[in-house]
Formats: sequence, C-alpha cells, structure tokens
Amino acid sequence: MVISEMRLHPVAIADGPLRSSYGRHAPYALRTIVELKTTDGLTGISETYGGDQPLAALERARPLVVGRDPFQLTDLWLSLADQAEKAIAGDRSQTMLVPGENPHDAHTRTYAALEVACLDLIGRAFNKPLCDVVGGRARSKPPFSAYLFYKHSGGGGMGDDARDDEYGECLDPQSMVRQARQMIAKYGFKEIKLKGGVLDPGQEIETIKALRAEFGPAFPLRIDPNCAWSVETSLKVGRELREELTGGGYLEDPTATLEGMAAVRKGLLAEGIDTPLASNVATTCFEHLPIAQRLDSVQIVLSDPHYWGGIRAQLHLSKFSQVLGMGLSMHSNNHLGVSMMIMAHAAAACPHLTHACDTHYPWQTEQDEVVLGGRVPIVDGAVEITGKPGLGVDLDYDQLARGVERFNNLPYRKRDDEAEMRKHVDPNWKRILPRW
Amino acid sequence: MVISEMRLHPVAIADGPLRSSYGRHAPYALRTIVELKTTDGLTGISETYGGDQPLAALERARPLVVGRDPFQLTDLWLSLADQAEKAIAGDRSQTMLVPGENPHDAHTRTYAALEVACLDLIGRAFNKPLCDVVGGRARSKPPFSAYLFYKHSGGGGMGDDARDDEYGECLDPQSMVRQARQMIAKYGFKEIKLKGGVLDPGQEIETIKALRAEFGPAFPLRIDPNCAWSVETSLKVGRELREELTGGGYLEDPTATLEGMAAVRKGLLAEGIDTPLASNVATTCFEHLPIAQRLDSVQIVLSDPHYWGGIRAQLHLSKFSQVLGMGLSMHSNNHLGVSMMIMAHAAAACPHLTHACDTHYPWQTEQDEVVLGGRVPIVDGAVEITGKPGLGVDLDYDQLARGVERFNNLPYRKRDDEAEMRKHVDPNWKRILPRW
Repeated sequence: MVISEMRLHPVAIADGPLRSSYGRHAPYALRTIVELKTTDGLTGISETYGGDQPLAALERARPLVVGRDPFQLTDLWLSLADQAEKAIAGDRSQTMLVPGENPHDAHTRTYAALEVACLDLIGRAFNKPLCDVVGGRARSKPPFSAYLFYKHSGGGGMGDDARDDEYGECLDPQSMVRQARQMIAKYGFKEIKLKGGVLDPGQEIETIKALRAEFGPAFPLRIDPNCAWSVETSLKVGRELREELTGGGYLEDPTATLEGMAAVRKGLLAEGIDTPLASNVATTCFEHLPIAQRLDSVQIVLSDPHYWGGIRAQLHLSKFSQVLGMGLSMHSNNHLGVSMMIMAHAAAACPHLTHACDTHYPWQTEQDEVVLGGRVPIVDGAVEITGKPGLGVDLDYDQLARGVERFNNLPYRKRDDEAEMRKHVDPNWKRILPRW
Repeated sequence: MVISEMRLHPVAIADGPLRSSYGRHAPYALRTIVELKTTDGLTGISETYGGDQPLAALERARPLVVGRDPFQLTDLWLSLADQAEKAIAGDRSQTMLVPGENPHDAHTRTYAALEVACLDLIGRAFNKPLCDVVGGRARSKPPFSAYLFYKHSGGGGMGDDARDDEYGECLDPQSMVRQARQMIAKYGFKEIKLKGGVLDPGQEIETIKALRAEFGPAFPLRIDPNCAWSVETSLKVGRELREELTGGGYLEDPTATLEGMAAVRKGLLAEGIDTPLASNVATTCFEHLPIAQRLDSVQIVLSDPHYWGGIRAQLHLSKFSQVLGMGLSMHSNNHLGVSMMIMAHAAAACPHLTHACDTHYPWQTEQDEVVLGGRVPIVDGAVEITGKPGLGVDLDYDQLARGVERFNNLPYRKRDDEAEMRKHVDPNWKRILPRW
C-alpha cells in the first residue's frame, strides 16, 4: 500500500455570529478536507484547519506524502519536525493566536492531518475502526459537552446562502438558558460549557448561576473566557462560582500565561476553593506540561488531536497527563463530521480522559456537512464508535464541491474575529487582554 | 480475529557464571515463551521473564486473553492495571528486586508479554513488521551495545548439558579487554557497557581505562555497578573516569535511590563533571520520571519494553523522556531471539533513542535458541528489521520442547544470584548496598 495521490479540498462552512474574547465568528468558518489515495484504490480522509496557511503547509508536505507507505508515520513526523525546528522557535501559547494560525505548531497540525488520513487508510485496509488501529477502545461512546456561546441573532452564511439558526440572539443569562435547553434536548449532552469573556464578568457569573438553577448539579459546568480576565477578576469569578464550577466542572483559561494561571490557582486554594483550572491556551504542547505541573497552573489539559499532533500524540498526552496527575479533556474548533469522528476516535482510544470533550458541531448544519449520509449523530451527548473501518465516514463529493465553491467565493482566507467585530459591533474594537 | 488459545512455555536457557552486584548468575536463566492462537489460524508470539511468578501472573490473565480481539489492547491494559491497583501499592524501584521479581510491576510485565504477542498477530495478519504496526520506523537497524561481565571460567548449563564458553574467566582488566575484543569482533558493537559492582572500584576504574586504551574514544563506554557504591565512591569513580564516561558514554546506577543519584549528579556537576547518569533501577515506571527530572537524578532513562508495559509504552516513554530533556536507552536481561526482536522493534519504532541498547544476547547460544533458523543476527552492532511480518521470527518447536524439558528438570523456579554466590564463591555472601 503506497500513497499515490494527495487531494486537498479547502471548504467554507456557514457559522453563526458567535462571540468570544477573540471577537465574533465570521459568516463562514474555513476547513480543509484531506484525501489520500493509494495504489490499491483505497481513500483515507482527514479534516484540519482551513484557509491559506494550513493549505500551503500541507502542500509543502506533498513530496513527503506521495510515494509513502501509510504505516511509516514516525518517519513523516521526524521529517516535518525537522523542517519546523529549522524554521521556527518560540512561544507556543495560544494567548493571541488561535490554533489554526500559530506558526509554532504548524508542523504538528500538518502531521496530524496526514496521520489521521493514513490511520484511516490502515483501518480501511484491515476493516478495523481507527481507534482499534492505535490500541483499541477505552470507551465506545465518548462523551461530548454542550458548548454554549453568547451570540447575535441569525445563523451563518452570506447573501443567498445566509440562514437563520434555531437559537437566535443570546446575550443575557435567560437566553443562554434557552440555548442550553434547546441544545441538550437535541443532543442529550450531560455537561455544559459556556464560552465566556464576552459580557461583563458579573453577567457571565449570573449566566452560570442561571444554568445551575435550571439544570442542577447533575450537569457539570465549565466557563471559558479565553484569558479575558485579570488574575483578580479570575479570583472573583472563582470565588462567586465556587460551588457551580466544582463537582466535575472547571474554570478554563480565565487569564493568560502559565504564571497567571498559577496565580489564580494559588489564590483560589488560599481561600479553600479547589476549582480545577483547565487550559488549551497556556498548554498547547508537551513541553508546557512539566512547567504547568510544577507551577500548578493547569489541572486539566485540553488536548486537541488537530494541533497536538494527531491520534497517537493524543495517546501520549493521555499517558503524560495521567502520570503528571492532571485531568484530560478536549478542545474543539468549528468542524465538520470528519473532524468530529477524529475527535471521537481519539477520545475512544484514550485510557485517561476525565471530562466530556468540547465540540462546536451543533453550530454547523446538515447543509454544509461533507460526510456521506449526513451529519454524525450525537445521542445522549455521545458519538458512538461503530464497527465501520477507519474513521467510519466517507465523503459526499457533491457536498464537498459545494463547500469548495463557497471557499473560492469568499473574500477572506483566514479567521479574523477582530475584523468581524469591527464590521458588525464596534469599528474600533480590539482584543484587549485582560479586558476585565 | 479472536484469540482462541494461550500457550505458555516456561524454558531454561544455559547462562554463564556472570557476576554483578546481585551476585552470580545461575547455570540456567529462566524465560517464558507466550503463544497466542487465533480462530483464523494465526499464531502470535512473545517472550518474557521466567519462573513461577511471571507464569502464574500470565495464567491469571488467561480469562482476559482467550476470546479477545487482539486489537483491544487498551481494555486489556485497563483490566490488568485495575487488578494491580487493588492488590499492590508501593515502591517500584529495582534496588533490591530485579525486574522479573518486583510484584509492583507484575501487571506491566504481564501486559507487555501479551501486548507483544497481540501486535505480532496484527503484524502477521497485515503482513507488516511489528514496528510498522505501531507507527513505523525511526531507524531500521537499531544499535546494541557490547555488554561485558566479570565472570568465572566456564559457560552455562549443568551436568551433561554443561559447556564452556569462548570468554573464559574475566576477573581483571586485561581479561575484560580480551572479552571486549572477542565480542566486538563477533558482533561489531560500537558502544561498550561494563557490568560493574563486582571488583574493588579501583579495579573497575582500571578496567574502564584499559578498555579506553584499547578501543579509543570512538567507542563510548558505560559502567553499571547496580547501586554497589556509596555517593562518595560514585563521586570518586565519576571523577577518575570523567573523560572515559563522557562523549556518548554514561555512569549507570552508581548508587541507590533517586535521592542518592541526585547527590552524585550534584557532586559531579560541582566539580565541572557533566557525565550523565543513567538508570533502570531508580526509574522503573512513568511516575518516577517527573521526580527524577526535578531532582536531576537521571539524565538517561533505561527503558525496557518487558517491564515498562510493552511496545506502545516504550513509545510513550520515548516521547516523555524527550519532553523532559532526558536521554533514552534500553535495559536488558538474559533472553532469547523472540525478546531480542521485541527490543529491536521497540528501538526501531522510537523517535527518541539516544544510546545503543543493552543486550545479554551474546551470553546465550545457538543450542538454546527457540527461534526457527537459529539466532537473530547482530551485524555491525545492530539488529536489522526486515520486511517479515510481526516480530519477524517463528518458533522452533523442537528447541522449545528442549527448553521446557530443562526447565522441568531444574530445582529452582526463580532467579537467585545470592544463592549462587553462596554456593560457589563465599558461603556467607550477602548483597550489601553500598558495598563500597
């Protein structure tokens, strides 16, 4: 089995006007669908970040991919890591740069996309689900969390393609409770994440309290302001939500840097508040973990196979975080069904996974799904690993062509949530950290 | 593919009167050969520690093995780890207990033996070498080190089975140089390890200096007294061998405990001596590594897939040690060709492997090999990973039966190097740490 062809499909998928401390989501999120074809007629697929930069990085890797035996992944990793080390050194936090845009982990992202497509090929060749190819299942129905966003009214898309969504405007506690009810009714989630860093912290505290009042302690709660808060504000929120964020919940990236997170942790513990801090911003690579542990900055690592280096890297991380006494959950970005299955297989394979994974999947719709047969089902808050080989999904080429066409018609080629804020909300908006 | 049968073959293999700080090797070393058979007629094999305890542990695992899909390894690991946690907690150093006898890592040893046999099955089913099943090769000819022992005259075996060896008595520097010359001429090793902790440290220093004089700095040197020295003696040796043990060499387990090793490191650094310390005694499991790093006790981890939990655990360790800024090499015990190939595949698959692996393989002979076609070739100090599926070796059932017969005829069922010392060298001999 030798890879004879690599096809890259940049797609645009409608995305609602979701808010975060980065700004406002654009009408389309960008993704890239990867296809690897082999000499014996198999096709392995993958999904990764979108836009010009990830596409160009994959394109640069083409000579390393075509002609390769898909089992020879370590050699591919070493080649990409070697190139990366020559090109780039420096900070890999995601305080300012979102995962798809940080040049410091371009090689792990590129590798991850290719590794998954190769593992999908191997699974298809041997009629085994991807998670079984890497060691088998710790669980067959990996759990995901509801992911609530403050948002403006309307759904994603532009022009004729624009559409409404079922959630409408959610910019206060009660509309967020409504959003949660809708999302939980539809998908059966059993944990709830609120994207914060948007409203005044007092209102976000009120939102969490309203969610607790509605759903009770059986639904663990997490809030993620993406570093929008100072240490002092983080402490204030931690103090006011001491009950709501414990018992399976967490406080995610309240403030920037490993040192800032450590100060929050120390301050909370000093008041007897043991709310765990989670992070996908301060900890984005293996090298961060020993530091995060030493400083006690992060108690729950938010992994992401898309930028931590793929499925086997996720398994290393499962072991690593367990040994370091840290919890493990999973970060997400806007994504389609292929990526949903990447996350599901990664989560299924992890022996150590302590919290339900994030997913933006509810924010995308059937109209944009590129997976044959339609969207991946989320039932009782979980995605089931079936007996299907590889990732367990195939591409719908008509839908893929539609996504590519929309990508080609778009005037932008990278995510820029600040620009969207300036366009729609405030012409002078800038991301300021800490804002509160 | 479902496992329908597990066959366990306890074997005894002739072993010479090798010396270490544990005592003297018995005339036979004990090993266990594992066979897993599947419903579709495949056989996967493995090799692990010998004697009653490892055999009983494998026997206890039988209900978890028969009926299992060999891809479902994580589930097997979780079941064994779960049982272990209920049964045992405590110290996992190997200061007093050698790897095959420490009850604290019985579950990782049992799992490792079974994992390898399952990966061998998968490799055979896919017609892929084992190292490719777990991610592919970082290298195709993993290097091994010469492993020199002080020894009494004669080879292994008892009664009619007793035989001489080519090395004769080696109990002084010049005979050790002869041993090294013979072993390097035969196998082409490019690094040299001396098992120390046997003679007075002054004589062992002299031995290392004689080896350097004979082979020059192109052959990195390592010495391993298995904790026979005090911190002070370790410092004296480190000082006197400051040149000989740098440049690719190392000082292995000079003294006991992570704290003792840290004191040696600190003392050496204070004198400007940067000789790295290696360990398979103070660091025997993942949980030791963050402590070893914090204390700076160990700069090179000596892994061993047989007791660290198999091939995938070895890959976790490769990542983990790299992230922690530690080197990685591999520990060995007396073994046959199946185990030699386990180590070769593990080493081939590891992206991060900084030193040639140990092997006792030169101390076993063709007469005891259970691998079809005879012993695994070591050429230019390396074992080549060929295109053969799985481990790349099959069992010679006549030879296996011969090994089992000798096991059955033996009066002992566990390794006891102290007893051998009392029998042959000194009736009052006891292992004392530190001896010097």
